[in-house]
Amino acid sequence: MTSTPAVGAKVSPEQAAVEAALVDTVVASFDECGNPRLKELMVALTRHLHAFIREVRLTEEEWGSAIAFLTEAGHITDDVRQEFILLSDTLGASMQTINVNNRAYGNATEATVFGPFFVEDAPHVELGGDVSFGAPGEPCWVEGAVTDTDGRPLPGARIEVWEADEDGLYDVQHDAAKRSARGHLFSAGDGSYRFWGLTPTPYPIPDDGPVGRMLDAVGRSPLRASHLHFMVSHESCRTLVTHIFPQGDPIGWDDSVFGVKESLIKTFEPQPAGTPTPDGRVIDGTWSRVHFDIVLAPAGA
Amino acid sequence: MTSTPAVGAKVSPEQAAVEAALVDTVVASFDECGNPRLKELMVALTRHLHAFIREVRLTEEEWGSAIAFLTEAGHITDDVRQEFILLSDTLGASMQTINVNNRAYGNATEATVFGPFFVEDAPHVELGGDVSFGAPGEPCWVEGAVTDTDGRPLPGARIEVWEADEDGLYDVQHDAAKRSARGHLFSAGDGSYRFWGLTPTPYPIPDDGPVGRMLDAVGRSPLRASHLHFMVSHESCRTLVTHIFPQGDPIGWDDSVFGVKESLIKTFEPQPAGTPTPDGRVIDGTWSRVHFDIVLAPAGA
Repeated sequence: MTSTPAVGAKVSPEQAAVEAALVDTVVASFDECGNPRLKELMVALTRHLHAFIREVRLTEEEWGSAIAFLTEAGHITDDVRQEFILLSDTLGASMQTINVNNRAYGNATEATVFGPFFVEDAPHVELGGDVSFGAPGEPCWVEGAVTDTDGRPLPGARIEVWEADEDGLYDVQHDAAKRSARGHLFSAGDGSYRFWGLTPTPYPIPDDGPVGRMLDAVGRSPLRASHLHFMVSHESCRTLVTHIFPQGDPIGWDDSVFGVKESLIKTFEPQPAGTPTPDGRVIDGTWSRVHFDIVLAPAGA
Repeated sequence: MTSTPAVGAKVSPEQAAVEAALVDTVVASFDECGNPRLKELMVALTRHLHAFIREVRLTEEEWGSAIAFLTEAGHITDDVRQEFILLSDTLGASMQTINVNNRAYGNATEATVFGPFFVEDAPHVELGGDVSFGAPGEPCWVEGAVTDTDGRPLPGARIEVWEADEDGLYDVQHDAAKRSARGHLFSAGDGSYRFWGLTPTPYPIPDDGPVGRMLDAVGRSPLRASHLHFMVSHESCRTLVTHIFPQGDPIGWDDSVFGVKESLIKTFEPQPAGTPTPDGRVIDGTWSRVHFDIVLAPAGA
């Protein structure tokens, strides 16, 4: 933290000194901060922000574009659209924060991005119930068990699941009050769980705002790898936020938010129309099934 | 840009490798960007953003606070309130951008922050006219000359001036449609200019939003050093955005946006009630006067 940020070769020593002095002045402005962690964050933010400006020799026009970008992101953000999370996601900042806070722990299931579409009040379903609530898409039987890293079953773990429908939209994107293709259930006494959802399909992140324009300007696709969201919590464990990704997905590693991890790629087995389901359900068309065992790290890991 | 960002001593080599690999993946996502400058900006932004997250070991809760802060900043921002500029200003990012783009050039007048209160359509006044338009405050006679760095007069330079009234508010903070304590004039054939404004007084930046709460949390004052804004342009010169600051100001170097430079501190001479004015005006109370010669760097300097 004490090194002078690199600046372009064309900058004179006098100019570099003026710029470095300003960094020192701003850093010193946090000297009286009574919260040591907040002080650490503000000082580091200041140093990196100034290092970025100096390194790229940010023009005043570019600075203005950044202000306009943030303003537009703020104005498009509401209760169901979160452009700042999309920005964090598409810059990999969300995934890096996940990495920093969810260090690999033994055989615990790996975490990935939370995304902007979780809601608190998803409906409860019984084990084996259907969280699609009429959302369009191919049915998918999801089953597995929740255990700790020693393989002990975790009964009563709360499993939140949510996903986009086959049109690539979450319920709240259709209607802020709608609840479908999401729900929560609790693992059984032996740790097992099962539910009906939808076979995940690729979809674009919302790309009609400034983040979408940024992706377009840099030649990146807004498409996310197909996935099904999980958040799994149990009183004795570190809460897990993750997805599972179908093997063979057309987007896969080109995921626009860098969420894919090898260990989270699962085989979704396609089932021809008429194949009997595990729970004796009669399904007109095709369906799929996937097995996903969830291993939770201990609390504080 | 090739060095590995510093990470905390507690991070294992395996964990550091996971984090570094993500940075490389995000950087590589910009490989197809057809605009070299945009690519440079996005890559540098990515590297610094990730270095910040890794260095401070940003928690998920802190990440959430940052998203909430930006969201609130976006929602409070409108045509006359610009919280993102306030954020940039209070982190010194605006001043650093000014530094980078307005390198010292001979005896040219130094630049400082633009601030969020400039408007395009300020009224025109003749030389010697009054830009206060009834805004409350002590009258101030401002005069000087506009020249190039060789001392040649610059006739017809456009001089935009704007300032807060003695209540610490700009016109647009009273009413978005109001125009007072701002105006523009043109330098005379000999480069000279003169106008009546208001003696500058200290005032807080708008502090009822997230930036104000940040300043409070870190123990910083929202007060700006007293100042009078100038933007001076001439076809042959680099446009100058600056302020002048009164000598002896109670805030001075503790300016909340780091805008003060030694060369921009000027003596505002207090004038007792009844003192004859340079233009034979009769003023009931006290007034002040200041001399400010403006030296413009050549275009492209």
